[in-house]
Amino acid sequence: MGNPVLVEVTRGRLTESRHRGAVAVVDADGKAVLALGDVAAPVFPRSAIKALQALPLLESGAGDHFGFGAEELALACGSHSGEDAHVAGVERMLARAGLAERALLCGIHWPLNQDAARDLARRGGSATALHNNCSGKHAGFLCAACALGVDTAAYITPEHPVQRAVKAVLDDLAGAVIPDERRAIDGCSVPTWAMPLTGLARAFARFGTGQGLTPVRAAAARRLLAACADKPWFVAGTNRFCTTLMSLFGPRVFAKTGAEGVCCGALPELGLGIAIKCDDGGNRAAEVVFAALVGRLLARTDAEQAALGPLARPVIRNWHGIEVGGLRPAAALLG
Amino acid sequence: MGNPVLVEVTRGRLTESRHRGAVAVVDADGKAVLALGDVAAPVFPRSAIKALQALPLLESGAGDHFGFGAEELALACGSHSGEDAHVAGVERMLARAGLAERALLCGIHWPLNQDAARDLARRGGSATALHNNCSGKHAGFLCAACALGVDTAAYITPEHPVQRAVKAVLDDLAGAVIPDERRAIDGCSVPTWAMPLTGLARAFARFGTGQGLTPVRAAAARRLLAACADKPWFVAGTNRFCTTLMSLFGPRVFAKTGAEGVCCGALPELGLGIAIKCDDGGNRAAEVVFAALVGRLLARTDAEQAALGPLARPVIRNWHGIEVGGLRPAAALLG
Repeated sequence: MGNPVLVEVTRGRLTESRHRGAVAVVDADGKAVLALGDVAAPVFPRSAIKALQALPLLESGAGDHFGFGAEELALACGSHSGEDAHVAGVERMLARAGLAERALLCGIHWPLNQDAARDLARRGGSATALHNNCSGKHAGFLCAACALGVDTAAYITPEHPVQRAVKAVLDDLAGAVIPDERRAIDGCSVPTWAMPLTGLARAFARFGTGQGLTPVRAAAARRLLAACADKPWFVAGTNRFCTTLMSLFGPRVFAKTGAEGVCCGALPELGLGIAIKCDDGGNRAAEVVFAALVGRLLARTDAEQAALGPLARPVIRNWHGIEVGGLRPAAALLG
Repeated sequence: MGNPVLVEVTRGRLTESRHRGAVAVVDADGKAVLALGDVAAPVFPRSAIKALQALPLLESGAGDHFGFGAEELALACGSHSGEDAHVAGVERMLARAGLAERALLCGIHWPLNQDAARDLARRGGSATALHNNCSGKHAGFLCAACALGVDTAAYITPEHPVQRAVKAVLDDLAGAVIPDERRAIDGCSVPTWAMPLTGLARAFARFGTGQGLTPVRAAAARRLLAACADKPWFVAGTNRFCTTLMSLFGPRVFAKTGAEGVCCGALPELGLGIAIKCDDGGNRAAEVVFAALVGRLLARTDAEQAALGPLARPVIRNWHGIEVGGLRPAAALLG
């Protein structure tokens, strides 16, 4: 019993580890195209829904008011690696709204990109809230608050108009009101609401197609999707899964990982949304599952197929560069 | 079906993630005291058996010949964090054998300890093989090769006398010859052999008690155990699980984690060995399982009980220091 094994991790001739999980692929009407495991259990989407959390930024008019282009909008949808151009982009977003780093309440951590972290240390620098992978999302919340004419001091609380707008977006896109007892606190201190994978997948199908959304919301979704397709490096960073996958497929694939083994996204041309949760919180497996689903669902050129391989079946190399094993989709996922 | 859930990860009022796995607690005769999940399936022990891999260092006479004390022996048994005193200790081991860093074939990575990595970058330094968490084990292999009078160039190959000695130790302690097709390559390029958890747990019961071992092997095991109990910081490092747990219990608990969700150890006063594998490779869960087993099996003072709590039920705080959830042993583990 329990969810099926979705990904196997091999070493030599043996399977060393196994990741279980659940997958929902759903259209904008909520019709399931694929359901593996328990797709009704509530799951914290974490950072996988940053693009949905960014809708109020555009719906509030802040995007136009502050003249945000694709880089700023991709940062608002992203979990960046803290590389120099990410940090500069977030600073630029804040500056347009007359704000500074101290307005960010996401907390401080060193850049996720280890080269960037060591470069920062080498220059005698220290981690700031700008380096937090969520700083682009938080800058977006602050800019939305400015455009709405509400205070910017308490923008991370569930009662704040920006977080209430985010909650309304989630209820609308998923097609169901999320009960308040499913609210917890995310790594960057904003609310996170647990939602069934079917609801998350439906939300991304509607985000990807605009179906059933108000014209304003559909236009905002289109603009965020275009920004992430245009500037995928600003959604994550160098050698990161979302960046690599979206660089490969452009506007045909939207993908966003979240902490604890979540990955959500959309295949707009098929009208589908995807939501994945690995039971154990393993992000390496969620990425393999997403890549395998793209391989199963989307028409591809030979070149795209070749480039997708290392994402769906990544090789594990040791500290000497020797190939010692790899990850691969398990039988349940191959259909 | 499948292994039971051993650890739950909570966020707010919900369980966010779950880790399944298997546990064997066995005495030196191989009698099972506790078996959860599939304890017969072969598991790569990875770094969890470094203490067993260090037995040839003492059995070869290298430990005495090079005058190694507790720090050097703990480094040979450990996966260090690359902090300054770890690196200096490994350099000292190599120097006693007339060797330098270039003799190490473990590969290069930056210190596991992020503060140490950033300090190194700040000083304008770069990662070397000395910073590799396995460099103490590799220095031990090299010193054993020197004492045996064999070449030091190919010490990582399965045919090398040191690796053959390691394999003989494992077969002896586990009480069964491991078939050669269960050999793969570890992260640091030495052979790793997949063994059933029952065999691993029995090996640690014998390591912890000396029961059934030759006098030379039993004395070597006693000396390694004493070294790790005396200098647990050299087995791992600042704020690391093995170091914290062994600092708390001294010679009453031996514990060693390995990559991909493995943790092995011994409770010598009870004559027991422990072997844990989390299916998904999650080390955070393997540590919680080991701490929970210590809590279930070992008599403790109130102070020890209080100190064990954060290891068996660690709190998860976000980047703002807010408590957002935690890890806890699941029902199957509490018995």
